[in-house]
Amino acid sequence: MKTVGDVGERKLIEIMLGHLTPMPGMPVPFWDDVMAVGLGDGRAVVLNTDMLVWETDIPRGMTHLQAARKAVVMNFSDLGAKGVPPLAFLSSLGLPRETPVEAVEEMARGFEAGVREHGGYVIGGDTNEARDIIISGVALGVGEESKLMTRDGAKPGDILVVTGLFGETAAAFKILLEGYEAPKGIADTILKSVYMPKAKVMEGVALAGSGAVSASIDSSDGLAMSLHDLSRSSGVGFRLDSLPVSQRAQAFAEHVGLDAGDLALYGGEEYELVFTVKPHALNEAVDSLKFVGCEPMVIGEVTASRRIVFMEEGVERAVGKGGWDHFKGA
Amino acid sequence: MKTVGDVGERKLIEIMLGHLTPMPGMPVPFWDDVMAVGLGDGRAVVLNTDMLVWETDIPRGMTHLQAARKAVVMNFSDLGAKGVPPLAFLSSLGLPRETPVEAVEEMARGFEAGVREHGGYVIGGDTNEARDIIISGVALGVGEESKLMTRDGAKPGDILVVTGLFGETAAAFKILLEGYEAPKGIADTILKSVYMPKAKVMEGVALAGSGAVSASIDSSDGLAMSLHDLSRSSGVGFRLDSLPVSQRAQAFAEHVGLDAGDLALYGGEEYELVFTVKPHALNEAVDSLKFVGCEPMVIGEVTASRRIVFMEEGVERAVGKGGWDHFKGA
Repeated sequence: MKTVGDVGERKLIEIMLGHLTPMPGMPVPFWDDVMAVGLGDGRAVVLNTDMLVWETDIPRGMTHLQAARKAVVMNFSDLGAKGVPPLAFLSSLGLPRETPVEAVEEMARGFEAGVREHGGYVIGGDTNEARDIIISGVALGVGEESKLMTRDGAKPGDILVVTGLFGETAAAFKILLEGYEAPKGIADTILKSVYMPKAKVMEGVALAGSGAVSASIDSSDGLAMSLHDLSRSSGVGFRLDSLPVSQRAQAFAEHVGLDAGDLALYGGEEYELVFTVKPHALNEAVDSLKFVGCEPMVIGEVTASRRIVFMEEGVERAVGKGGWDHFKGA
Repeated sequence: MKTVGDVGERKLIEIMLGHLTPMPGMPVPFWDDVMAVGLGDGRAVVLNTDMLVWETDIPRGMTHLQAARKAVVMNFSDLGAKGVPPLAFLSSLGLPRETPVEAVEEMARGFEAGVREHGGYVIGGDTNEARDIIISGVALGVGEESKLMTRDGAKPGDILVVTGLFGETAAAFKILLEGYEAPKGIADTILKSVYMPKAKVMEGVALAGSGAVSASIDSSDGLAMSLHDLSRSSGVGFRLDSLPVSQRAQAFAEHVGLDAGDLALYGGEEYELVFTVKPHALNEAVDSLKFVGCEPMVIGEVTASRRIVFMEEGVERAVGKGGWDHFKGA
């Protein structure tokens, strides 16, 4: 008898979808970052739900406030990646009876911190008894259907762009889970990338306004996996000409003898936007981001072949998935 | 240091609300069955979220399909109680690695069964690793703001009505949790009230259309607790003239020597609507329900005093809360 550990998260979702009737006219297809329902007037309600389970998802040293804030950030990030401003957050909490009330108060403050950063509100939720702390979050926004930046619009020749640099969360997990040590002076900042992640929500809303984007995703499962997801949804491939490695991730990698490129590609729990821009529309995309203080980085191009490769000094390297998969581990 | 077990669910939510900024212009206040966000055109997105935790919420003998279907029913019931037709359901699943894939397929079939009964669709969700099976569900609907049947509109003199009879789920839990035995011939039907609960969604939508209702709630926390919730939100009390006890609950109570009225008042996990109707509008309410095959039952009247009493053969009995409270037990 096969278990969910045998088949992994993605296969499991595929199996479940086989039993479900798709809603006709869904503004966003299955396998995108969010779910959406058309409102009949050109707008769509856009939703996302993600669950944090204390034992498996909360790293050592993360506070209750940070965990709750992260539940907001991760859910709002998916809305941002579609270009939709988040309006509201719902939290469904599972709590062991012996949880201190103070910890729950910290979580309430964390939800509030998360929503206020993005101009939204916590509009409710519920609480339940559970063996472990469970934070199931729901983000809600309303967006124009025609401006939703789905995963499936990338075309060969489009330009591949990211909103920031990668690798710090991967470095942080090496420190937290595998006992690596960071060079002095940057350890705290590296850990902060995991404890206090930032979502590029305004950036996504600005990009949607530019009309320049053909496909978009957030990098919560890691840069490589995000590219594979865009590849699958759009039926295209990517040629990376450079890797967007953060300087701190680079310094960490050199210090401990790891490959900085691997940290950038195969991390996760970081919330940059990975998107493709129609050729000739790069200026519009870049300008829209400037207004919100973001300097994007062009890292490659969309290709017709469905392969994902990195051109390193003229030599082609295949970029495997290697992203994070619930149940199967890294 | 106080724990959530010390303070209980309702106090815990109160404490959390103290840390949250309310969204301005919420179409439905905190402490109602659902959350809502105005769409600016007279409509509101209406949401509800409820979590089922296998160990604490799923009774012996309930299948994976039934548990998943119930997750839909309980969430859709809250929308129905506000008069809003449910459009979509999202499921966020926590699953232990060793969960058989077949169990997850059963859950997918259960979600599908639940939504199809009410004309909705499963539009997505996510899966996560957890120590116990967790089903966190979200229901989504869109309704006219002015027709939302909130908890806070009951006025003295309004008529108190329910959509059906009570007590079977309480009897079922006596059998499942306390070892009572039902008389032959009705045990299966009584258990079915827990395994395959029915939500009165169409009934709520019909009632909202009638315009006759001043306040409404679903009875998921038990009839007595529903009355206390309406009392708190509307600032009124109730005088019950009869108790809506199901014949099967009555037969069970007589068989095992329990009070049938207690079963009807202090059950839970049953999804009738408990609502108040403006005086002189009872016919409109009853007629609207007839069209969807429902025969409502008048059980009392709204009073100015905030007490909740049952007039039994001329003697007044106070109806305490006694409803189900997470963390604190019954």
